[in-house]
Amino acid sequence: MLKIFAAPKSVALASVILLEEVKADYEAVILDFSRNEQREPTYQAINPKGRVPAVLTEDGILTETPAILLYIAQRFGPDTLTGGQSAFVFAKIQEFNSYLASTVHVAHAHRLRGSRWTDDPQALEALRKKVPESMLQAVSLIEDDLFQGPFVMGEDYTICDPYLFTICSWLKGDGVDTSRLPGILAHRDRILERPATQAALSRLQ
Amino acid sequence: MLKIFAAPKSVALASVILLEEVKADYEAVILDFSRNEQREPTYQAINPKGRVPAVLTEDGILTETPAILLYIAQRFGPDTLTGGQSAFVFAKIQEFNSYLASTVHVAHAHRLRGSRWTDDPQALEALRKKVPESMLQAVSLIEDDLFQGPFVMGEDYTICDPYLFTICSWLKGDGVDTSRLPGILAHRDRILERPATQAALSRLQ
Repeated sequence: MLKIFAAPKSVALASVILLEEVKADYEAVILDFSRNEQREPTYQAINPKGRVPAVLTEDGILTETPAILLYIAQRFGPDTLTGGQSAFVFAKIQEFNSYLASTVHVAHAHRLRGSRWTDDPQALEALRKKVPESMLQAVSLIEDDLFQGPFVMGEDYTICDPYLFTICSWLKGDGVDTSRLPGILAHRDRILERPATQAALSRLQ
Repeated sequence: MLKIFAAPKSVALASVILLEEVKADYEAVILDFSRNEQREPTYQAINPKGRVPAVLTEDGILTETPAILLYIAQRFGPDTLTGGQSAFVFAKIQEFNSYLASTVHVAHAHRLRGSRWTDDPQALEALRKKVPESMLQAVSLIEDDLFQGPFVMGEDYTICDPYLFTICSWLKGDGVDTSRLPGILAHRDRILERPATQAALSRLQ
């Protein structure tokens, strides 16, 4: 059985949603970030990055959302989750999730995690100030160029969907003007109403 | 035949090295970043992200280094490039490359691409100032916890190796104290002397 280390409102939600979608047998361990539990030695021994999610498998620990989503899908899910038989669609799915990890999530992180890149209080404030703009820019590329609908890759629910849903649940807190993002807002509602999403949100409360 | 859009000293080097390793038939189109060619309409039509690498395949355009490396390996290479028959090693390889993309490359980008996250000149200077420290921290996790040797994942050359090599070729310019990174420096020398690496460096000059 898999054990996933997660925290409320974190990106770990994407992986928990997918575990629910594929009906995997798993245990969720909820860390309290307000108590900095992710920095405690017991968790550092599990994941020295001090972040969530981390998944404990029979073979060892796995981190990084794009890798975890792909692992869960390949182990438990139908191949439609990763593009079916098409090597190119498979690659486009990895491309999309890599963009979420390295551009969209990173833009968001400059609001509350700016200390990764500067210790200067005024610079931290300057970083926070631009988040509404940089997040809108990052997500607009999805709205305008990448999103196909009704799901990210078209007719099939894939491992891009819980990940996009999770990151877009941060848009309001990031101060993003969502009026130009109708496709993404409709997608968020569509994923929110799925039973697996509801179950995952209950687990992470 | 694949066509790859690349630029000297960019992360596109990793994908070109892998194309050389697997002896793929490809054409390289070199963009001149000093002339901002990545921002010109003809290239924006190919990759609206305005970055390299982008790979033109028979099925369409592919971007994001982790996705491109995996695509090239699965299409042209032996399965040892992606962990052989082990689903867990395959996942660990995606984990490693995702970490390079979303943490290590991002730390580096705060030196010259800080305008993605702030327009304030003093904040940009503050971001540049921390790069030696944040890059050292990001790469030390590889040195101490992730790197197995002689290659990233142990005995087999995988798609992690050209990517780590490429990012570590930036350490000197980033002002990183490499004295505590003996494993990574030896890896860099090991990858540098491979004929495929030499051929790729020639193509990107």
